[in-house]
Amino acid sequence: MKPTILISNDDGISADGILALASEIKKFADIIVIAPHTQQSAVGHSITMSDPIRARKVYHGKKFFGYAVEGTPADSVKLAVHTLLKNKKIDLLISGINQGANTAINIIYSGTVSAATEGTILGLPSFAISLTSYTEKNFKPAAKFAAKLAKIILKKGLQKGVLLNVNVPAIPENKIKGALVTKQGKSSWDDTFEKRIDPANREYFWLTGSMYKIDESKEYDVKAVDEGYISVTPIHYDLTDFEFFEKMKNWKL
Amino acid sequence: MKPTILISNDDGISADGILALASEIKKFADIIVIAPHTQQSAVGHSITMSDPIRARKVYHGKKFFGYAVEGTPADSVKLAVHTLLKNKKIDLLISGINQGANTAINIIYSGTVSAATEGTILGLPSFAISLTSYTEKNFKPAAKFAAKLAKIILKKGLQKGVLLNVNVPAIPENKIKGALVTKQGKSSWDDTFEKRIDPANREYFWLTGSMYKIDESKEYDVKAVDEGYISVTPIHYDLTDFEFFEKMKNWKL
Repeated sequence: MKPTILISNDDGISADGILALASEIKKFADIIVIAPHTQQSAVGHSITMSDPIRARKVYHGKKFFGYAVEGTPADSVKLAVHTLLKNKKIDLLISGINQGANTAINIIYSGTVSAATEGTILGLPSFAISLTSYTEKNFKPAAKFAAKLAKIILKKGLQKGVLLNVNVPAIPENKIKGALVTKQGKSSWDDTFEKRIDPANREYFWLTGSMYKIDESKEYDVKAVDEGYISVTPIHYDLTDFEFFEKMKNWKL
Repeated sequence: MKPTILISNDDGISADGILALASEIKKFADIIVIAPHTQQSAVGHSITMSDPIRARKVYHGKKFFGYAVEGTPADSVKLAVHTLLKNKKIDLLISGINQGANTAINIIYSGTVSAATEGTILGLPSFAISLTSYTEKNFKPAAKFAAKLAKIILKKGLQKGVLLNVNVPAIPENKIKGALVTKQGKSSWDDTFEKRIDPANREYFWLTGSMYKIDESKEYDVKAVDEGYISVTPIHYDLTDFEFFEKMKNWKL
């Protein structure tokens, strides 16, 4: 029997990355696509509590493709698992393929990762996958790796509370050196806000900035992709810092 | 010289919790309040990239109170540190006092925690503080604990990359048994979506549900507050699961 794989993302149900992923995964699995109706990048792990959520069926020609959810990536996954697919057995969730890297600090801002995190919270083996370029449109190598990894996870399983965060370098497939298990990098952003004046003479700000890279070993996600490897990072959502927990025991609170 | 303390939250600059916090902290510190203009609960670690951000000065009577930012908690902190307070030395960031618990899985959905996380990313010692009730309006015990903890941190410092997440039980102050250093609990939500039909006969969904509690030791945040303790959890944003990282080394990727 074919496995059933839930596909979501944060770039929206019409994004090139999710279409490429769906094409590749449906070769060996029954797929269900449930994703935000519009681009939701950098929403982090948002959920919608104060507003209603709607879901709309999306067709490609006459063929049912999936559900577009008026909400965040985490909303989409919650609604999928609890309501739209309530009595359906889902074997795996894949979120992506994101247009742009989700490495290092970007992980915590990422809607793509949050969809996979929500899947994990709900008990589904889950991974997020991103192509490390905002412009490259060849998602094929990433889609093929997603299929390969999906098959491995379907066989081996994942640990409760752990998901995988995959980043595929945006280089020609024959230049990719392989895949490495990595750690979340320590690289971060030099944020700046560009100050502008609107036509009514009021100031406003745009967030801009560039990433500064401090990770020097390919044991870290950022450096692994820079060196031409696919990066696979096991992550979790238990945020406790156990080391500082021990240190704080002698604090007088 | 007085320390300078940045205050933010996710309930918005007019929320009772931030007013109570500001009143207490300004007794010993110079405070700067920079917070979202409206309620931003459950936004997770969202940032605004595709839209401009505005900041507006807020006065209480004729007295300057702070800046209201049209954005998320993380936006507010980024804009504060990079632009509004660019050359100002900030000694500590406090986010809160949130109306409602931020324990266990709630941490990853929390805008209150995300403001403190962003502070930590930007190099400020930071903590988030919540009152574990959606209705209790006596923020005084929580505000007093925030002041106490602030003074401890100003003296001892925090470790790079580590923030504290504080939850104060919503019980009379004389019933609070003390403060415990805790771990993030494993408790989570039984989500359900209530299906409704709008006047135009289209269906929509509201997220609802209740928390199921599985943590049985007061070593965990959820249980500590349930037993009448203030819970202080050291958390971080390196999401790597080091145990599974080791296990994955023999995966053939």
